Amino acid sequence: MKKTPPSEPLSASVETPSFHAQHAPMGAHASLTLGMFRARGGMALEKGGPGPGGLYAGYRDEQGVLRHLPFFEVREDESARYTGKGSAQSPSETLFTESEVSREYLWATDRFRAPRLVLEVLTPFFSLPDPAHASADELKFASCPAIFVRLDFDNRRGAGPITGFFGATLGRESWTPLEEKSGGTLIGAVSRGSLGFATRARVSGFIDFSLPAALQRTHKTPYFLLGSVAGFTVAVPAGQRAEVLVACGFFNGVSATWNVETTYWYRRYFPTLVEVLAYALDHAPRYLEKAALRDAELAAAPLNDEQKFMIAHATRSYYGSTQWLDRAGEPCWVVNEGEYLMMNTFDLTVDMLFHEMRMNPWTVRNVLDHYASRYSYRDQIFDPARPRRLLPGGVSFTHDMGVAGHWSPAGHSSYEVSGLDRACFSHMTGEQLVNWILCAGVYYASTRDADFLRTHAFLLAECLESLERRDHPDPKRRDGVLKFESSRTWPGGEITTYDSLDPSLGQARNNLYLAVKTWAAYLALEQLFTAARRAELARGARAGARSVARTVAGKFDNRLGYIPAVFEGANKSAIIPAIEGLIFPHAMGLKKALSPSGPYRELLAALRRHFEAVLVPGTCLYPDGGWKLSSTSDNSWMSKIGLCMHVARSVLGLDFGDRELVFDRAHARWQRNGATFHACSDQFHSGVAKGSLYYPRIVTSVLWLEEGKK
Amino acid sequence: MKKTPPSEPLSASVETPSFHAQHAPMGAHASLTLGMFRARGGMALEKGGPGPGGLYAGYRDEQGVLRHLPFFEVREDESARYTGKGSAQSPSETLFTESEVSREYLWATDRFRAPRLVLEVLTPFFSLPDPAHASADELKFASCPAIFVRLDFDNRRGAGPITGFFGATLGRESWTPLEEKSGGTLIGAVSRGSLGFATRARVSGFIDFSLPAALQRTHKTPYFLLGSVAGFTVAVPAGQRAEVLVACGFFNGVSATWNVETTYWYRRYFPTLVEVLAYALDHAPRYLEKAALRDAELAAAPLNDEQKFMIAHATRSYYGSTQWLDRAGEPCWVVNEGEYLMMNTFDLTVDMLFHEMRMNPWTVRNVLDHYASRYSYRDQIFDPARPRRLLPGGVSFTHDMGVAGHWSPAGHSSYEVSGLDRACFSHMTGEQLVNWILCAGVYYASTRDADFLRTHAFLLAECLESLERRDHPDPKRRDGVLKFESSRTWPGGEITTYDSLDPSLGQARNNLYLAVKTWAAYLALEQLFTAARRAELARGARAGARSVARTVAGKFDNRLGYIPAVFEGANKSAIIPAIEGLIFPHAMGLKKALSPSGPYRELLAALRRHFEAVLVPGTCLYPDGGWKLSSTSDNSWMSKIGLCMHVARSVLGLDFGDRELVFDRAHARWQRNGATFHACSDQFHSGVAKGSLYYPRIVTSVLWLEEGKK
Repeated sequence: MKKTPPSEPLSASVETPSFHAQHAPMGAHASLTLGMFRARGGMALEKGGPGPGGLYAGYRDEQGVLRHLPFFEVREDESARYTGKGSAQSPSETLFTESEVSREYLWATDRFRAPRLVLEVLTPFFSLPDPAHASADELKFASCPAIFVRLDFDNRRGAGPITGFFGATLGRESWTPLEEKSGGTLIGAVSRGSLGFATRARVSGFIDFSLPAALQRTHKTPYFLLGSVAGFTVAVPAGQRAEVLVACGFFNGVSATWNVETTYWYRRYFPTLVEVLAYALDHAPRYLEKAALRDAELAAAPLNDEQKFMIAHATRSYYGSTQWLDRAGEPCWVVNEGEYLMMNTFDLTVDMLFHEMRMNPWTVRNVLDHYASRYSYRDQIFDPARPRRLLPGGVSFTHDMGVAGHWSPAGHSSYEVSGLDRACFSHMTGEQLVNWILCAGVYYASTRDADFLRTHAFLLAECLESLERRDHPDPKRRDGVLKFESSRTWPGGEITTYDSLDPSLGQARNNLYLAVKTWAAYLALEQLFTAARRAELARGARAGARSVARTVAGKFDNRLGYIPAVFEGANKSAIIPAIEGLIFPHAMGLKKALSPSGPYRELLAALRRHFEAVLVPGTCLYPDGGWKLSSTSDNSWMSKIGLCMHVARSVLGLDFGDRELVFDRAHARWQRNGATFHACSDQFHSGVAKGSLYYPRIVTSVLWLEEGKK
Repeated sequence: MKKTPPSEPLSASVETPSFHAQHAPMGAHASLTLGMFRARGGMALEKGGPGPGGLYAGYRDEQGVLRHLPFFEVREDESARYTGKGSAQSPSETLFTESEVSREYLWATDRFRAPRLVLEVLTPFFSLPDPAHASADELKFASCPAIFVRLDFDNRRGAGPITGFFGATLGRESWTPLEEKSGGTLIGAVSRGSLGFATRARVSGFIDFSLPAALQRTHKTPYFLLGSVAGFTVAVPAGQRAEVLVACGFFNGVSATWNVETTYWYRRYFPTLVEVLAYALDHAPRYLEKAALRDAELAAAPLNDEQKFMIAHATRSYYGSTQWLDRAGEPCWVVNEGEYLMMNTFDLTVDMLFHEMRMNPWTVRNVLDHYASRYSYRDQIFDPARPRRLLPGGVSFTHDMGVAGHWSPAGHSSYEVSGLDRACFSHMTGEQLVNWILCAGVYYASTRDADFLRTHAFLLAECLESLERRDHPDPKRRDGVLKFESSRTWPGGEITTYDSLDPSLGQARNNLYLAVKTWAAYLALEQLFTAARRAELARGARAGARSVARTVAGKFDNRLGYIPAVFEGANKSAIIPAIEGLIFPHAMGLKKALSPSGPYRELLAALRRHFEAVLVPGTCLYPDGGWKLSSTSDNSWMSKIGLCMHVARSVLGLDFGDRELVFDRAHARWQRNGATFHACSDQFHSGVAKGSLYYPRIVTSVLWLEEGKK
């Protein structure tokens, strides 16, 4: 227990303190979820949602009243199940209200201030070292599946001693105390070897049915093993303060997945959770320094507070879904799809790409290699006007690699089923082909990884051919836009990542959103082939890019004032993600392609006019100022909004002026008030989260951090 | 798919078909829980309650209507989470109502008959072979963690083809289909390698979001891996019937416990769940023969239908809580305490003893050895009138060995805490001492296991001394009844197993219930010491027995007409379990001790008068005819009622005449109507289960099967 005053903290106060956040280590698919008042949450592993437990933090004041933060669901004491009676008489208890608690939401520190109490949840994150090159020490430090809670009990102005407390519950799960196990060097507890916490501070550990039961014990056994609340107390004399640092650890020591076996990467260094906790505490100064660096980095960014909030919220949710696995000795990177638990959903990978490239590009290559080796497939294609005629298709990639730890069979996703016509769960063949190419382009542009290029030389050529054939098998009839459907959908049709929206964004063929991404994919291929000295293929890719650009620019409808979302059936939807694909040449540094006087100036001008025309109230703006991705669908996705905002400012050069804070405040409120229980979520219907809950993809918002730079 | 008509089944119809039952393999701490209509349940592992899923069984009739058994909770289709829309239009669907379903509840077969459909859940059980002597083949057969479901779709009078179906859901869990994995030899699915089902019948497998979605597929992918319902369909042409046998398997391939590592015994023979399922199906005829034998055995017993129901219900619940583990190469037997999950709770062991002695006495020795080696302790004792004077105590045993797979530290239970005065969670030192002795006595009486006697020779002598000292450290002041308290309760007092009742049964010292058990313990020690040729100790034990008998007989209160429950404080409670302890000399075959003209005739006469006096309405009978264990507490335990019924008839020689069916019907209704969701439960408040849910202990009712015998 150190009694040094903490250094002056950074501040990023949020307007309401009550909303859940995932507090996650990197790559452990785990989270200590808390923040929403009087709601369940707490520590959970591989869950895709808030846990069944909660956290206790507070103190018994001079009058004997328990005053605490309300990070748990108020329920009947579990002892009633045994005694047949209602809860034992509780000591007087008060939960802090929203008006008594302020919350500062930094990038790696979530700080709650209540009267005489500060609770911080610290989630250091940093570049994961590449296992191909890094030392065991570095890898151990980076993979350690733990985070920290720091408590500061302030009794400097107190009239008498107070007793600080901390506790955790996992619902009905049982605990084993660590005190005896560790020879008294750790106070804390673990449950089923998988979730637990520990401190090295001089505190008194307990297990009991509830916090009041532990604080006002009617018996004399500190660790009452039937109890579902484990924690500790610390005496704080009048005139003093007490700081306690707690490590919270998460551990799956056995198989992390089925059908193909994997273990967590951290298993190489940590045989048990207890060793995780001890290591985390021993290396706490270095971890906390990492957290402080991240906090300072975001605080210093030239962004408004709501933008910083969104980045901090999204980053937490992203790490909660990550899984750094060991597959037969090789690293295997998986990002689970939030509540849905689909593994490496490719249309999320292409969005989370920007964060991963900033942090650890090797994870991007890891996923691309995995898609190439196990989750690619070759199909036939057909013209929807002549479905009986199946023609040779080409290569593409599956939507995902499985669900909830169950790897799907090679060449198949868990999500895609056959025979659907442009409906949710149809195939995303064109979309995922474009996504692999775009990820490869961005990955190579910043790493210049020659081995990657060599390894996938043949596949890249196949990708070009596949892209061209899906436009039209007859080269003379190509216009750059995907128009043929995969035989996997026969006799139906493909969809895009926007699966739960209307056709404006949901159907793949003749789609504006996908056409601009296709243009970017041709540009990426041109770069890759040029680097690989395959001039002819590079020329072919360039031709494709010019073809799409010409077609899309030609679709500008002067009467409407924008480009309709779908180039068929008299569609008149107006969509924001028309500009989404511009991010890729930007991220690849293709200045010429994006120059207003360059070869694609007409496309760029058309998209700029389009965007300015649609971003108006009643079309692509909600009444609260939030962005509405499609004028014809009330389902708007935060991840894509964040991405398109960056494109608008950085590529199209727009300045939103005073409108910007209106946009950002609306979106931040969608998260805080519209997804209060679900932590950072993606799909919102008029500001209320209705799907893609507890989601990693919103981390596209880190792109905003690039905007202050040259 | 066999189409032979099944042999004429046994019948034991229950008056209402809607109540949950645990359908469990032996020793796997697992259950397929179903029976209550429109309630959650299904397959679950190590849970202590009904699972979050359910089972589907039914058929699509000639009109396209899905008609099925309602063994699931009716909820929104999970696809809404992805599409953002409500469920897709379902085909017409009808769930059978209670009036359309009859249920026959045999010992190992639970049979539901609905129009054109029979569903049987088959849970073969039999003696577990002793691992010290049995062959690997026998052990593999006995430990295989699987049960069976048999479906009979009857379309003999049908006008057109119907489609039979079967499906399972585990809530939101995902499935991997077995068809490809097994080269087409198994149709079925597994989830996380731990729960699954399979058939070798010629059926068509599926996975989808719901039964209607699978039966009226809008896509063409049989195994839609995002779906949470896995199952199969079978075409049944008009004029035919189809029988399908399904194995349901449960598997924990990794550590079953923490603090001391164990694995399940079946792990020696089965590396994966898929091999469990294949083995179960390959050996199905032998398993089904075992089930039929058990069914016939109970059906033939000279008992009324409600008694048979209770035995069948209790046996199922018992096996659901059992765990046959492997601890460093040695077998380790654990019965979990129903919903509470405490391990080998000793005051349950002493009741479940009778079933285990019938089935597999080696498990009784296994638990006794475990208590002796790791969960015994030595304490001090004190006279509650002079608590400051601590005196040497003696040996006793903990209440349990841990909770929810967490072994508690050596010498400590998860349940008992210090410093409580005769309240729930206090120590049961006297009770558990008596329980170890009684289990040892019954075990030895029927096995004559000389090695057991040798191994525990010293401990048995310690037990005698401990029993005597807890009566009174001064031999001259002993009266046979426990009066001193363990220092572990200091300055409080001990309790008995009846922890949630009032003092009439709840306090240990001067307690009638415990006194009669103490008498039985002295008798047991006398037998054990005589067998061990330790004449002096045998004499000491006999003296103890006579002393208790004399004291208890002397407590008969002629004014009350019975023996008050507690020999202090003017207590006047009337309790049924005064007679409970008589079971032990009876089970040990001590005819002389129980003879009306034997050395304990006065005690026996007093207990008989006592029992006849209290088993009257308003005292120890509820208005519905159910037994009320204590006149002063509305908390009555089915396990103890069953045991005392047996004692009343078999030891006291009472004949309840027409009243018997009234008693049994009341108790059976407590289970079916008062514990509908909780399967077989123990603690009832006026006929409604309020604790000890989903419980193993009620298996005391198997004692009734002894009554027809000589």
